[in-house]
Amino acid sequence: MRLSRYFLPLLKETPSEARIASHRLMLRAGLVRQSSAGIYSWLPLGLAVMQKIAAIVREEQNRIGALEMLMPTIQPAALWQESGRYEDYGEEMLRLKDRHGVAMLYGPTNEEQVTQIFRDTVRSWRDVPRLLYHIQWKFRDEIRPRFGVMRGREFLMKDAYSFDLDEAGARRAYHKMFLAYLRSFHRMGLTAVPVAADTGPIGGDLSHEFVVPVASGESELFCHADLLTLPPPAEVPEDAAAAAAEVERFTQFYAASDARHDAAAFARRVPKAAQFCARGIEIGHIFYFGEKYSAPMGCRVQDESGKSRALHCGSYGIGISRLVGAIIEASHDARGIIWPWAVAPFRVGLVCLQPQDDACRRQCEAFYAHAQAADIEVLYDDREERAGPKFHQLDLTGLPWQAVIGPREAAAGQVELKARASGARRTLPWQEALVQIQSPPPADFGSQAAGAV
Amino acid sequence: MRLSRYFLPLLKETPSEARIASHRLMLRAGLVRQSSAGIYSWLPLGLAVMQKIAAIVREEQNRIGALEMLMPTIQPAALWQESGRYEDYGEEMLRLKDRHGVAMLYGPTNEEQVTQIFRDTVRSWRDVPRLLYHIQWKFRDEIRPRFGVMRGREFLMKDAYSFDLDEAGARRAYHKMFLAYLRSFHRMGLTAVPVAADTGPIGGDLSHEFVVPVASGESELFCHADLLTLPPPAEVPEDAAAAAAEVERFTQFYAASDARHDAAAFARRVPKAAQFCARGIEIGHIFYFGEKYSAPMGCRVQDESGKSRALHCGSYGIGISRLVGAIIEASHDARGIIWPWAVAPFRVGLVCLQPQDDACRRQCEAFYAHAQAADIEVLYDDREERAGPKFHQLDLTGLPWQAVIGPREAAAGQVELKARASGARRTLPWQEALVQIQSPPPADFGSQAAGAV
Repeated sequence: MRLSRYFLPLLKETPSEARIASHRLMLRAGLVRQSSAGIYSWLPLGLAVMQKIAAIVREEQNRIGALEMLMPTIQPAALWQESGRYEDYGEEMLRLKDRHGVAMLYGPTNEEQVTQIFRDTVRSWRDVPRLLYHIQWKFRDEIRPRFGVMRGREFLMKDAYSFDLDEAGARRAYHKMFLAYLRSFHRMGLTAVPVAADTGPIGGDLSHEFVVPVASGESELFCHADLLTLPPPAEVPEDAAAAAAEVERFTQFYAASDARHDAAAFARRVPKAAQFCARGIEIGHIFYFGEKYSAPMGCRVQDESGKSRALHCGSYGIGISRLVGAIIEASHDARGIIWPWAVAPFRVGLVCLQPQDDACRRQCEAFYAHAQAADIEVLYDDREERAGPKFHQLDLTGLPWQAVIGPREAAAGQVELKARASGARRTLPWQEALVQIQSPPPADFGSQAAGAV
Repeated sequence: MRLSRYFLPLLKETPSEARIASHRLMLRAGLVRQSSAGIYSWLPLGLAVMQKIAAIVREEQNRIGALEMLMPTIQPAALWQESGRYEDYGEEMLRLKDRHGVAMLYGPTNEEQVTQIFRDTVRSWRDVPRLLYHIQWKFRDEIRPRFGVMRGREFLMKDAYSFDLDEAGARRAYHKMFLAYLRSFHRMGLTAVPVAADTGPIGGDLSHEFVVPVASGESELFCHADLLTLPPPAEVPEDAAAAAAEVERFTQFYAASDARHDAAAFARRVPKAAQFCARGIEIGHIFYFGEKYSAPMGCRVQDESGKSRALHCGSYGIGISRLVGAIIEASHDARGIIWPWAVAPFRVGLVCLQPQDDACRRQCEAFYAHAQAADIEVLYDDREERAGPKFHQLDLTGLPWQAVIGPREAAAGQVELKARASGARRTLPWQEALVQIQSPPPADFGSQAAGAV
């Protein structure tokens, strides 16, 4: 993509209400624009990140056999009166009336909607177990929306729902989802710690939050430090016992948020040197709640013996739009964002230092064309602009690789590569640079040889 | 995908309110379920079609340099008061108040939102032209929602917006979009006729609708029959004159909906034998409206001479969710849906006639595994169910290829292939069948040799 044809409006001044890094950086780097309090328009660069996050979540949901569907944003209030949650939800639920005066609401979650669908269509034990999910906008009318997309009013979530014949089946679904979440977050470059959690308004008796340690976190995280380095599951076992054992690899360690923290247990179970305490933010939350919705809503099937049984259910959420902010919170420096490879909106920022110099521009155009041909996502700064602002924007934007071509590099057929995260640089023949930018910056990049700069 | 693990609830009885084929078939074949009047949940099979349609639209938008972004569903009423449309829109606009009493609305379209973003971020002639688009849910509170997803209340649209320095630039954007639309619809297997149209509440002086001839259409279409067979543009020219000439290839022919039909002109301009009249439905609508929003909302840039100029704009919509219904209206028979290849949720329905027969099941499993390895999307009916209901569902579901393996085919290492559209059949060695199902059924399929059935 040529920057001269892209839509990437930077914000010069940081709005005073933006008090955390991700909120500031998302506005400054042109990822989002506020529409009204807690409601954002996603500009092309921000949307590209969100789409990559959604694609990873989708792949990992599909991998465990979850089926994608799509429920609407506007639901009838009657559905929530059936479950008894219409009154419970309070002012965070956006209620409205249609032109005929029918009470509707903007769905904050979808247990009722999916349970209704399942109840109306499924009759037999042969049709369970099932895992259904969707990725859809939700609304939560926060009294004081803040922290940008981290605590917005309109937000994008993946929510999944499991339907099983019995508790054992439901626990297997829960475990598979637990493991899929660890894989998803790891692929995005995040360290997410699973923490036993309260179930809140969703209800139920088994729940975990996935918490990322970041300085601006909303809660306090206490855990065994090994949880920060445990590798995610290489695969998610289909077998119930194997999935449970894999989950146990994580849940064997102490981990709690402040709401449920037990200082004595922490001291007893975690050696001093392994005690990890930090602020943290929740990026996913999973619940097993059994028959909480299926019983009152009559979501039942006939089992093999012909007996009617209420299904055992769970729900599983990931905040897709929130993750864009969470990843920035976890990965930035004073100069701007540092995108992990898998979610970077482009892999490379290519800067033409002197577009008015024919040889320099020709070399840039050629390198850009080669990169396009190799399917490498490049944001090419081809504007007639001074080098200073170009470098400033490049650091702010946070693409993993920076490729710079000035008249000197052009004359030598070279490209100067810089790894955004480490700042390490090397000047390479352009053919080698083209190979290098097809993978993430290696740890030892820049240390093999003295670069030209 | 194994049908035994999929979520595809058929509806036995057709609901009485479903009066057109697409509404009936989408409910019966398990594509959608109604949530409330004019609001639907998309089940996995329906969502798969909608995602393929969206992917085609996205590719063709990107091809002409349009940039994807994403605006929110809930917009502030104040924005619409600025343009003067808040009062104009009437009861079809879903109005609501947030918990602080602020007037908001569920966006029925996004001219105001996108103009605000552009106005607040763009200053210079260097930053235009731009084409921005998004794919997002919209709401239109129809007094009597009907025809299923064809005239729903919550619906998915692609809407694009163009920003140009002058009218000539805006016309070039309009022409590029015109051509991109023809390409998009053609790729989906639709014959879409561009028809000069009224501009309605969007405003402006140049507008075309894209109309598909179907028996259940909401309006009457009159056009030169050549428009039904004109090939779409092989590419969309960047050059203004070339794009205009390519558009002229279509607009040279008479085409009108009943609202603007001129019987005398039709008789004069179209030879009797080429006069085509049919019911039709609109699947896309494009508008050039100049400064209608940019002037009152102050969306201006400095031109090269330093003079401030209001931008010339257009907007361009495609009904993504409506297209699922429109394609079915255009392509079905008495037995069910007939999906065009490019939007089919799966390319092949594989039926195991006797799953309890070991050899038969083994052959099916092997064929399914080979198809998976070749990246062919197969819906594999592996259920222990009688052949009758399996064939019934197969026809209803409308996948382009049907592959049937019974004990006889299994013993011979063969597969019976049937093309859903023509009904033509052939029994082939499984290796040949595997090659055949990688492309759409050819026109002469089944006529080359007598099939085994």
